[in-house]
Parts: sequence; structure tokens; C-alpha cells
Amino acid sequence: MSTFIEAADALAPIDHDAAAATAAHLDRLTKPPGSLGRLEFAAIQLAGIAGTTPPPVPEPAGVAVFAGDHGVVVEGVTPWPAEVTAQMVANFCAGGAAINVLARHVGASVVVVDVGVARDVDDAPGLIQAKVARGTANFAYAPAMTLEQCALALDVGASVASEQIAKGTRCLITGDMGIGNTTPSAALIAAFTGRSAVEVTGRGTGIDDDYYARKVSVVERAVQRQRLAPGGLGDPLAVLASLGGFEIAALAGYITAGAAGRVPVLIDGVIAVAALLSANALNPGVLPYCVAGHRSVEPGASAGLAAVGLIPLLDLDLRLGEGSGACLALPVLQAAAKLTAEMATFDSAGVTEK
Amino acid sequence: MSTFIEAADALAPIDHDAAAATAAHLDRLTKPPGSLGRLEFAAIQLAGIAGTTPPPVPEPAGVAVFAGDHGVVVEGVTPWPAEVTAQMVANFCAGGAAINVLARHVGASVVVVDVGVARDVDDAPGLIQAKVARGTANFAYAPAMTLEQCALALDVGASVASEQIAKGTRCLITGDMGIGNTTPSAALIAAFTGRSAVEVTGRGTGIDDDYYARKVSVVERAVQRQRLAPGGLGDPLAVLASLGGFEIAALAGYITAGAAGRVPVLIDGVIAVAALLSANALNPGVLPYCVAGHRSVEPGASAGLAAVGLIPLLDLDLRLGEGSGACLALPVLQAAAKLTAEMATFDSAGVTEK
Repeated sequence: MSTFIEAADALAPIDHDAAAATAAHLDRLTKPPGSLGRLEFAAIQLAGIAGTTPPPVPEPAGVAVFAGDHGVVVEGVTPWPAEVTAQMVANFCAGGAAINVLARHVGASVVVVDVGVARDVDDAPGLIQAKVARGTANFAYAPAMTLEQCALALDVGASVASEQIAKGTRCLITGDMGIGNTTPSAALIAAFTGRSAVEVTGRGTGIDDDYYARKVSVVERAVQRQRLAPGGLGDPLAVLASLGGFEIAALAGYITAGAAGRVPVLIDGVIAVAALLSANALNPGVLPYCVAGHRSVEPGASAGLAAVGLIPLLDLDLRLGEGSGACLALPVLQAAAKLTAEMATFDSAGVTEK
Repeated sequence: MSTFIEAADALAPIDHDAAAATAAHLDRLTKPPGSLGRLEFAAIQLAGIAGTTPPPVPEPAGVAVFAGDHGVVVEGVTPWPAEVTAQMVANFCAGGAAINVLARHVGASVVVVDVGVARDVDDAPGLIQAKVARGTANFAYAPAMTLEQCALALDVGASVASEQIAKGTRCLITGDMGIGNTTPSAALIAAFTGRSAVEVTGRGTGIDDDYYARKVSVVERAVQRQRLAPGGLGDPLAVLASLGGFEIAALAGYITAGAAGRVPVLIDGVIAVAALLSANALNPGVLPYCVAGHRSVEPGASAGLAAVGLIPLLDLDLRLGEGSGACLALPVLQAAAKLTAEMATFDSAGVTEK
């Protein structure tokens, strides 16, 4: 189990030779060059990550659902009661949530991590108790986390990733649960991309105009508060602590340790994108190991992905989180590797080239 | 084994009660209403198709790859030699093509059907010999098929679908192989949507400007020829025979018999879309049973899907055919059914609603 700092120190470039060899091999397979579209880019990235050609199939895969609560909910940014975070953690542990169904469907394991749920959470199989605090402070007026709390949450995520990799997991899937967490995600995305609050704030689970107006206003004020605070918007750790959440910081640590472990990290929706931008601001070396699983309905997700140049594999109008969209993208990513490894070449199949 | 006419006569509306019951059930599951986006629409459609709620998981799935050659290749519309059609049929039978890898990946079976390959094709496991003729006529100057040939090809497709369904297949995946077949597909899509040749003609497997100019010109002339011929553009069978191909007509029969058998039919790229428009023009009752698997790079695919109001599940810049994009969409479609059946409800999980 590594800490966040250890993971950051272990980050290394991807293997460009393996990537180039895979690109060349793809043009020898029995198909018109480039006709597998985005799957060819995915295969090349997987080869660069693993350092082998053809790339290994990214399996087994593991989802980690990090859960935390958010003090900002008192501002009226969501109609859902905060107690739902803990209730959904129990639902994850019982196997009844969307992410459980999807993980079973694609053959991925699921761990649930309490990194900042406000209530006590009962022990259960698959649950990791790693509570840093009982929810964040209301970031409308003060930093959501102290720098120490943020560092602890980064360590929780790094530790979960390194443990999954040590157990043989070869693809990490970012999951989250936290009532209100599209609000800190929007704030982080605004801070890291320079976009305005209204550009990156969405309706989350589905909110009306009154909730939406309050949400945009809170995001705007919080970013402005941090702009004037120590570190401003130029110190990624200060930004993450000020505008983030426990599950978002943990996800940033998770992404970093996944990249350090040279496994692909499948990025889910807007919460995972906020974590990715945070991780990338802290250590840009994480980016080549990340694959955007899907395009969430949330505008902040698209803005964040565009800022780091990632194009998502799927676009299914999802706005659930939990890792659901990333999980659905896993079979596509695996298909890219299998096509590279298993297809016949023009020579081997006796097919004439144009 | 049914004929095309028998299949058309057996078409029935989907079950709107089962669809409505599934829509209501989806709102009781532990997620914000509508947050599963396109998967919710897919689940509702699957319930309507099967007539049960929750809908059954569409499995096992079967791919049928229909292969045929095209007389129009003498016009210089593709740089690939026509012999590649037969060579790729052998590759499919040997398991080395992209569709084989993808079908294994998603657990689908594959049958390959020679419905109009110019060369003799050797017997092989998984191959159905049903050659109607050795390729179509050059449709630049005369109908690609006679009406009798077209009817025979429709019957081949209907027969393959009804046999797959009789053996227990519960999801049909449309596959194709035929050097030059994006040209007749563009002509059919132009004829059935009223769009111009240049709007619906693409670069297929990847052609240069000279090939492209010839291709657009051939599509334009062929549609104009049929506009002035017996039946004009108002007689779907005449249009299909005049501008289509053996594998396209067979796919139209396949889609029709799949719909008649009340199983979902996953539509692949531009060739399958041309077949869908043909089947839909012949019998509009097929449409509710069809799911668009992906958005091909070919502009005709998007134009055709828009004309019948289908939104594809995936958009991965594919331009291979064979059923590859539809095959990749299968896990998404299956996920929609599993989520509906397996997720906990707010009541059962003790989660508070907003």
C-alpha cells in the first residue's frame, strides 16, 4: 500500500515504442486501415500503458466507489437528503445499486470506501472504513477540508488503488457517492479550467431552476473565495482542499496510484473528471494512463475532459455517477485489446490488400 | 424457417403495456429518475419487444454476416479487389476477422451466409451456402438484381433469422461483407430519404478524391435511372432490386423476420441502415424492433438513422461493417435489461427519496 506521495514519485512515462509497434500492427490486420476508429487509439494507449504489444486485455477490473458527504448541502443545492449517502453505501454493500449490476455484468469487482460519510456506516463485506471526517465543511464560506484532511483522503485513494493492483486488478474504475457532490465538482472544474460557474454547473441528479440558481451562485462564490485565499487558484492542493470533497480527493489519489502502477484508469462522470483535473494539476504524468469512459450529461464533465484533451468512449446521456458509465465502457476497452491480439493479418489469412 | 412474406405477415405491434410498466418500474429503482439516460429507453423498448417487464436479457445473441459481390465495382468506386469478399468469407469461417473477435468477446455466435459472392466459396463450419447469383449487375446502367433475385435474397435473410430464433437466439446482430457495398447502400439511402448523392455518400473503407468523385457520380446516376424506371422511387421492392445488393436484401429479410419473431435486431453501420430503410419501406412494422448499435463514420448511416428516428447507442468512429459496431453495442443493451431486473428499489433498499 503506497501513499499519495509515493505514487506521485513513481509516475513514469508510457512506453512509446510499444504504442508505435501496436499502431503498426493494427495496419496489418484484416481490415481497412483505421476502420476500427476509436478502438485503435484505445489499443495504442493500452500498449503504451502496459509496455507490451499487443496490449494485455485490461482484466480483471475493479471498481472503487468512494463515498463522502458535503457541508455545502445546507445551501440548498440538492433536494436529496444527505442521509442518502450512507443509505446508498449500504445499498452498494448489499449489491442492489446500479454499479453493482453493471460490475457483475462486465465481470468487475466492487469495493466501497467510506472516506467521509457524515453518518456511521456499518461494517459489511466489500466495505473499507477509512473515514477522514464526517463530511466536509460548507465550502461556500471556508475550505471544505484542511490541507491535512485532503492529504489523508489522497492517501486513502492511493492505498485502495495500490491494494487492488497488488491483488491482480489490471483496470481501475473510478466510482463515487456523495449527495451534493456535483457542486464541489463544478467548483473544481471551474477552478482548474478557468471556465465560469454557469458554464460548468449542471443539474446533477435533476434539479429545478431555484436549486440551480443557488448552485451556480455557490460555485461562483466559492471559486472567488479561493481565488483570494492563500495559494489562490495556482496551488492545486489548496484548490482541492478548498473546493473539493473527501471522495473527490480520494479519487485523485486513486487515479494517481493507478497510473503509478501502470494500469489503465477508467474515468467516470463529472465527479471523476473533477478528481482527474485535480490529480493532473498535482501531477501531469497521470494523464496518459487515463481513459474517459463516457460523456456525462453534466456540462462540467465535457469542459473538464476537453481541458485535458480526452474524448470519452461512450455518450449515453448518463448522470448517475457511482462509476456506472466507466463500467459500461470496460467491454469496449477490452475489445480494443482483444482485436489487436486475436485478429488475423492480411498475410496469415491470405487476404489481398488494396 | 419462414419466407420473407410469411415474416412480413407475422409482424405485430410491440407491447405498450409492458413498455409503460417498465418505465414506471425504472422510476422506483435506487437512482435519480432518468439518470440512466439512453439505457432507460433501451430497457423500455426491450420490454415492449418481449412483452414482459422487466424485459428479458437479450441473450444468447447471434450475428449473421451476409456476403455478396457488386457489379458496380467496375466503375472504380473502391480500390479493393472484389476477390477480397470471398477471402474475407474464409477469414470469417476461420475466426480471424474483427467480427469473430468481437462476437467471442460478447458471447455471440456467428453464421456466415454466401448470398451472392462472385467466386465459389468452400464449405466450412458456420457457413451457409445460399448463393442467389454470382454478384449483382452493375447498377450504374441496369437494376442490380431482378425482382425474382431480390425476393430470393429476402427469403434467405428471413430464413436465417427464423432459424436462429428457433434455436433460441434472442438478439439478432446484422453483419455484412461485400467489396463495394457502401455504394449501393448510399444509393438506397438516397432513394429512401430523398437526400442527394453527395449528402449520403462517404469514403467507405477510405478512398481518395478520384474514387470518391466516381462513387458520388454513380450513386447519382443510378438513383436517377431508377426514378425514371418502372416503379420509380415509390415501389420499395423495385428500388431495393434496382439499387441494392444480395447481402443488403438478405439483411432486409433478416431484420423483418427478427421483428416478426419479436426479438431485438441490432443494426450495424451504413449497409445495415440501407437494409433497415428497405425493410421499413416494405413493412414499417419492423422499426420498433430495431436498435441502432452505433453511428458509422459514413454520412449515409446518420442520414438513414435520422430518417427513421433512431439514435445509435455507440459512436466510435467505426467504418468496418461486418456487424462490428452492433456487436460492441450488445453489452450496453444487455446492461439495460439487467439494471431493470436486478437493481433494488427505494423501498426494498430503505433509501429515502428526494
